[in-house]
Amino acid sequence: MSGTTSFEAWIADIAARTEAALDAALPLADEAPAELHRAMRHGVLDGGKRVRPLLVHAAGLAFGAPADVITAAAVAVELIHDYSLVHDDMPEMDNDLLRRGKPTVHAAFGQANALLVGDALQSLAFEVLADVASPNAARLCALLARASGSRGMAGGQAIDLASVGIRLTRAELETMHRLKTGALLRASVMLGAEAAEPVPDEAALEALDAYAAAVGLAFQVVDDVLDAEADTATLGKTAGKDAAADKPTYVSLLGLSEAKLLAERLREDAHAALARLDGDTQRLAQIADYIVRRSY
Amino acid sequence: MSGTTSFEAWIADIAARTEAALDAALPLADEAPAELHRAMRHGVLDGGKRVRPLLVHAAGLAFGAPADVITAAAVAVELIHDYSLVHDDMPEMDNDLLRRGKPTVHAAFGQANALLVGDALQSLAFEVLADVASPNAARLCALLARASGSRGMAGGQAIDLASVGIRLTRAELETMHRLKTGALLRASVMLGAEAAEPVPDEAALEALDAYAAAVGLAFQVVDDVLDAEADTATLGKTAGKDAAADKPTYVSLLGLSEAKLLAERLREDAHAALARLDGDTQRLAQIADYIVRRSY
Repeated sequence: MSGTTSFEAWIADIAARTEAALDAALPLADEAPAELHRAMRHGVLDGGKRVRPLLVHAAGLAFGAPADVITAAAVAVELIHDYSLVHDDMPEMDNDLLRRGKPTVHAAFGQANALLVGDALQSLAFEVLADVASPNAARLCALLARASGSRGMAGGQAIDLASVGIRLTRAELETMHRLKTGALLRASVMLGAEAAEPVPDEAALEALDAYAAAVGLAFQVVDDVLDAEADTATLGKTAGKDAAADKPTYVSLLGLSEAKLLAERLREDAHAALARLDGDTQRLAQIADYIVRRSY
Repeated sequence: MSGTTSFEAWIADIAARTEAALDAALPLADEAPAELHRAMRHGVLDGGKRVRPLLVHAAGLAFGAPADVITAAAVAVELIHDYSLVHDDMPEMDNDLLRRGKPTVHAAFGQANALLVGDALQSLAFEVLADVASPNAARLCALLARASGSRGMAGGQAIDLASVGIRLTRAELETMHRLKTGALLRASVMLGAEAAEPVPDEAALEALDAYAAAVGLAFQVVDDVLDAEADTATLGKTAGKDAAADKPTYVSLLGLSEAKLLAERLREDAHAALARLDGDTQRLAQIADYIVRRSY
């Protein structure tokens, strides 16, 4: 579905396929322990832009990876993202009650269940990915695990936690985001590419990683811009929250118009990186535009 | 090291090798984010009986699995166990301040860090296991993920959570423990066996699973007996806690002497299962005895 379909139709199709695959991967709501399984489904289904699955699919398309491996990798990375949201929303972290226009998991099911939901979603991510019928399955698991752990997403959250009320330098802010959101966005792109058999060569993976780094950072810069500009109804989560919590953002550090310029420059970097690749990178290019120019 | 070494010397050797491998797998305490990495090390190192690594090694020995795969599997399953302890001790769960004779992670580093420590330890477990140089790596990851998730350990914790103050039947109590502690103990045995190349045949895996199920349940029954009998100093954790929290235990359900008889019967079941196996099962047999006859 590359080339002939509009980008809007393509992302709607991927979102629908991802939703169906997540639904199939999650235990049914009436399977024991039913409360846990209902809460897991609440935390995952029917929500989000599914940006990470889009990246997995776009990179997988560019390198001709098998469809079933792409789908499993998309599900796995989305489950990791969703578990992190469930834990991040908890009272000891961001204490958020609203997510994707719905009550957060701890608001709806209690704190102890939210803790277990996040834990079980992380396990499920690795189960789905390890079960894939591919000679690359273990390599993909290692890639996802590295991006999720203390040198990736969880490490970024720890830096974020320690930075409340502190004025970070731009370099420190970038390190934090490179880990907190960047690591998983980059992993999404690399999972799509490394789902291909054989795995793309080092030069291709390097160009792709440059693309992924630019898109990952752009995503965060735009998030900060939107958080500063938008209202709660449009975002589907509590707006202005980071500023209220005295958390450093690109807007607080650079100002609104500089932050917007930075996002645009990162979009151009992403395109420049794609120009070094041979495959069909149309969808990757469109995602870079979409991430920078989205309004929510 | 089978046959010629005493069991005590063997378990001391495995514990030391596991400690060294855990130390090497964990990021250094001064690597950024340093607070997170110090807290991860606090939650893992220098503590515990390392029962799960013992089971991995004993099963790996019985089937001639490569030493490096056994060691990685032992580290991975111990990291999953340790992450579960960190989260289980948190205020929204058991609210425990003492573990292995030290302050729990949330008591020493705060709740938000404890949440991230558990999350990052789970990721690290899969990273270590997926990185192993074995054709079975993905299969081992899938096995561990299944045992950790909502149909395994996390599911058992959810049932435990929902059962406070409720009088469970013996069947319900067994289901809870089969998941909460049994799933990971069984996974330990199966990881050791499936680390072998080629993987043992179905009949062997079935006999081994019967052994693991008996040992897993015996472990919990003995835990309940010890919790009812021992004092806090010997256990290194708060004693009598389950009874105080009105949690169902084998002792509250069966009485002390019936619970002890059950443990002994399960020990015999474990030995009977081993009799169906060809390999050198001496260490597995000794572990069954050790688990039932331990005093802490």
